Amino acid sequence: MGGKRNTSLIKESNVDVLIIGAGPAGLMAAHALAKSGVNVRIVDQRPDKVAAGQADGIQPRTIESYDLAERLLREGNQVHMAAFYNPSASGGIALTDRVRDVAAPSARFPFEVTLHQGAIEAIFLDSMESLGVKVCRPLTPTSIQVSENDDQLKDVNSHPVRVSFILGRVVLRNLSPLDDHEESEIVHAKFVIGADGAHSWVRKTLSLTLDGEQTTYIWGVVDMTPDTDFPDIRNRCAIHSNNGSCMIIPREDDKVRLYVQLGDRDAVDEESGRVDKSKIGPHELLDATRKIFYPYTFKTPESFDWWTIYIIGQRVASKFSVKDRVFIAGDACHTHSPKAGQGMNASMNDTHNLAWKLTQVLRGWADISLLQTYELERRKYAQDLISFDRQFAKLFSGKPRTEEYMDGVSHEDFFKIFQTFSGFTSGIGIHYAPSLITDSSYQAHAKKLIIGQRVLPQIFVRAADSRPVEIQDLLPADSRFKLIVFVGNSSDATRRDRIRRLAEDIRDVLRPYSPDGISAVFEIIPISCAKKADVRYNDLSKLFGCHWSKVLIDDTDVSGKQGGDGYSNYGVEPLVGAIIVVRPDGYVGMVAPFENVKELGAYFVGFMKVSTPLPNM
Amino acid sequence: MGGKRNTSLIKESNVDVLIIGAGPAGLMAAHALAKSGVNVRIVDQRPDKVAAGQADGIQPRTIESYDLAERLLREGNQVHMAAFYNPSASGGIALTDRVRDVAAPSARFPFEVTLHQGAIEAIFLDSMESLGVKVCRPLTPTSIQVSENDDQLKDVNSHPVRVSFILGRVVLRNLSPLDDHEESEIVHAKFVIGADGAHSWVRKTLSLTLDGEQTTYIWGVVDMTPDTDFPDIRNRCAIHSNNGSCMIIPREDDKVRLYVQLGDRDAVDEESGRVDKSKIGPHELLDATRKIFYPYTFKTPESFDWWTIYIIGQRVASKFSVKDRVFIAGDACHTHSPKAGQGMNASMNDTHNLAWKLTQVLRGWADISLLQTYELERRKYAQDLISFDRQFAKLFSGKPRTEEYMDGVSHEDFFKIFQTFSGFTSGIGIHYAPSLITDSSYQAHAKKLIIGQRVLPQIFVRAADSRPVEIQDLLPADSRFKLIVFVGNSSDATRRDRIRRLAEDIRDVLRPYSPDGISAVFEIIPISCAKKADVRYNDLSKLFGCHWSKVLIDDTDVSGKQGGDGYSNYGVEPLVGAIIVVRPDGYVGMVAPFENVKELGAYFVGFMKVSTPLPNM
Repeated sequence: MGGKRNTSLIKESNVDVLIIGAGPAGLMAAHALAKSGVNVRIVDQRPDKVAAGQADGIQPRTIESYDLAERLLREGNQVHMAAFYNPSASGGIALTDRVRDVAAPSARFPFEVTLHQGAIEAIFLDSMESLGVKVCRPLTPTSIQVSENDDQLKDVNSHPVRVSFILGRVVLRNLSPLDDHEESEIVHAKFVIGADGAHSWVRKTLSLTLDGEQTTYIWGVVDMTPDTDFPDIRNRCAIHSNNGSCMIIPREDDKVRLYVQLGDRDAVDEESGRVDKSKIGPHELLDATRKIFYPYTFKTPESFDWWTIYIIGQRVASKFSVKDRVFIAGDACHTHSPKAGQGMNASMNDTHNLAWKLTQVLRGWADISLLQTYELERRKYAQDLISFDRQFAKLFSGKPRTEEYMDGVSHEDFFKIFQTFSGFTSGIGIHYAPSLITDSSYQAHAKKLIIGQRVLPQIFVRAADSRPVEIQDLLPADSRFKLIVFVGNSSDATRRDRIRRLAEDIRDVLRPYSPDGISAVFEIIPISCAKKADVRYNDLSKLFGCHWSKVLIDDTDVSGKQGGDGYSNYGVEPLVGAIIVVRPDGYVGMVAPFENVKELGAYFVGFMKVSTPLPNM
Repeated sequence: MGGKRNTSLIKESNVDVLIIGAGPAGLMAAHALAKSGVNVRIVDQRPDKVAAGQADGIQPRTIESYDLAERLLREGNQVHMAAFYNPSASGGIALTDRVRDVAAPSARFPFEVTLHQGAIEAIFLDSMESLGVKVCRPLTPTSIQVSENDDQLKDVNSHPVRVSFILGRVVLRNLSPLDDHEESEIVHAKFVIGADGAHSWVRKTLSLTLDGEQTTYIWGVVDMTPDTDFPDIRNRCAIHSNNGSCMIIPREDDKVRLYVQLGDRDAVDEESGRVDKSKIGPHELLDATRKIFYPYTFKTPESFDWWTIYIIGQRVASKFSVKDRVFIAGDACHTHSPKAGQGMNASMNDTHNLAWKLTQVLRGWADISLLQTYELERRKYAQDLISFDRQFAKLFSGKPRTEEYMDGVSHEDFFKIFQTFSGFTSGIGIHYAPSLITDSSYQAHAKKLIIGQRVLPQIFVRAADSRPVEIQDLLPADSRFKLIVFVGNSSDATRRDRIRRLAEDIRDVLRPYSPDGISAVFEIIPISCAKKADVRYNDLSKLFGCHWSKVLIDDTDVSGKQGGDGYSNYGVEPLVGAIIVVRPDGYVGMVAPFENVKELGAYFVGFMKVSTPLPNM
């Protein structure tokens, strides 16, 4: 190698999943796949990771899931309160109302976490590194080809996607032919995820279009440590003034992000119609802020941490995948305004949805057709997001209603949107439509545990040691489906016989998909309505073959302050019982009747691959 | 150095605090002092840290304090439930009752954490290492001398204690004269802490006696992963059977510790009267266990993690210090039975009590006489501990009451002791008597915040961002006294004038002790009873010169589920107000009347050193 200067040196390699782009969507995917032991590679054309700025809001649902909570809660700021300011009679602005920032009643963490994107990415990067996976950077993709060979596409073990790269960050339009470059590389992948942002090279190269339009709303963003007498500087604020609108997002340490509305003339180049960043900087953003906040004052800080200007555009990609071998995710498939704090969350949720499906397919557990549910579920979500964002951005960018301007946006109008979409903005209201993996036939057996939504948080108590546990913590994204079995009262001897038969029936249904022991592919969590004073955990751990820590009861903890009412909160009748199938991403996939375990088989046969012949059901 | 073989090589060095012994008491001291930036050295004669066995229970109070909670909760097992078994009518044992393991109602963590001693020590060792402090080992002390010179003893900057060491672990009775050893060392210390265990060399060498006696109760202890059908194996259990008593302590992973009562003849050498470890091993302990647990069964495990045998002795050292320059702590000053889970906690609390006092004296903030309160507070506690332990051990080792043996211990007798002492065993009931630093004159101004006890846990809400915070988390052991100022309603303009004057008065009182800015030596936490809907945090942060995150209000959080009633839970009248002085170890030192700030001055003048002339009060 040492002697071959100035000649082409092309490395070729195979990988199961190649991820292009190491932002939140790409890192979520790489981390999830690495944790599942999938052979994965992630590349990025930026030479370094993000240091400041960019996205910063983590929704309650994102905190709940993904094993991020501990570090997010330690490092991030929490936003509990939202304050609304409007024009006051005496000129300037005044406080109209303070309300809880997260209105969704079932939020386990009733707040948002704010933290700069680099810190959030570091959580994934650190955990990935402990698994031996690093981002390869800077590496610029130059071509991508997907095989047209149907046989190859059907064979999950083939590598039908060919991607070539050159080392370094290269502006593509200046590229000379590939063989002029000293170092380059060709990767053959089973699957590719394009998580390369709003200007996605993957999306453009594969001719996937982005549908939608640009608005005329122009906003500036600035991160700084403020020195102000404004009494809500540590709350999320929506300010409607006669001098424009502003949003405050308090951040880690003493930092704050300000979104400031700009008049067209401030920043748009009259000739080209484009935003002209040479005409405006953070000092101009601060000047605009001061006009909006009058009579409150902001001193000029010693420095600004980050700033930018953007025009809101709302667009969704026409397709999210090519032949179910290349997928795009995150900003590559949806762009919208950042102020509702959706961007990073939507992006991470895209690949969280995709990663477990890829893992199940690559392990040979699920059929490749499972991957179609990615576009089905996430494109519908993206459309809902854009539709919400249109309404929100319009009301937020609109002039406030005053006696002189009765067509303006009233506080009531704005507040209504804020409340109505709280399930959506918190990430908690996401509801996947019926599909292969979302079967709502037996919703009546667990009336309040909505099929297609995430499992409601609920504290149960461990039968063996009365320790209270949050059921969500027993449902990690470890690629396995979970079966929560509401068995009724296991302290009752007659019922126990019934439970014994049920346990055998469940084993019969699952065994074909998991010949090496059921817990390799599934996790069973039995929940009894026996009480802590007399329950015997070993009655159930033996029947279901599970570890003692997985046997739960529906009772309060020893202090009486936590837990209880789980059956009723989920709408399960103790005398009837129910089996809840939870997808690896924490969403309810189906409810099976306690008395009809066959339905469980009918669900799994729809997308899972039988490893041994199915028994006669 | 290389050429000088076989000749004496004596290093000499000075240190502020020398700690002998790196068990829980020594490590707590070293860690606390290192965190405070004190020049500290810790030595141990054991070549390695503890790997298994030894103490394993962490009380609720120990979890609350010391910044250990996060890692303890992640790594340890939690004990929520206690189960009691007694002889059943049909032979063998049966469940009598299950109750909460921690009955103290104000416990913030209503459970114990169990984890082997090595893991607990590792928490300190890791944190110390990040501060650049390591245990010097193996190093055996050979002599200790305390100066008799009064002038030197009075001068806090002198090094009146001389300790010599030899490198290695050496059995002292076999020692030849010091100069026969190649490597040795002399340390001159300002202060020495002897935390070298029940057989303390420091204690013996300084002729401090251990008063008390040995009982006739002989117990075995074995740690293992059990395979049993006993349904309470994951609860703390007290088993009284006609074949002896047993206690179960469930532990991390699937491990369990068993304390098993042994008959005298099993283990006592008839000639010497000593426990004969050659006559008994873990298999014999398991056999005794099986007899006690009948009809439940225990399979023989593949291995035992740790085991030992002990005779209960209850003793307290006659003195805890020599000239306030050498202190003994932990097992060096009190020994007792391990079953109530007190040992490690008592030891760590000893040096937690001592470390902040040493820090304040070494920094020149407090007078050296402050150190007398160590023995005053901790010896009284040790005596209470021994008195409790006598009653507990007697009842636990006693035969159960049956129809044939009506003089035996009834479940009611035992349960009563268990409940009565719950404040004590949880560590929460510790109550330091009046002294220089514990002044209960104005208890009536905060009726329920008992002076001399730890600050009751209570959730308040931050005024700036409505985030709920546990007040205990704002009272870290950072060597500073904290002043919690209950100001009343800061939203009321008249009251605000009153608060302004109070803030000035407090500053006048504290300034002499803290000329470089009050927050160098004290932390002020104002708590308003204004509500989150209208409070302005900056009203108070400005007056008291504190960070926005320290201004609290007595209100519920946004979900309405946490916080509120803080004034009433502490017994403070909103219209009156109160100032609570919290010691650096989290105990209430005094309550000062809102209307009489002079009393605050009278408290601090008792032990703190004035850096500038006191203003005229």
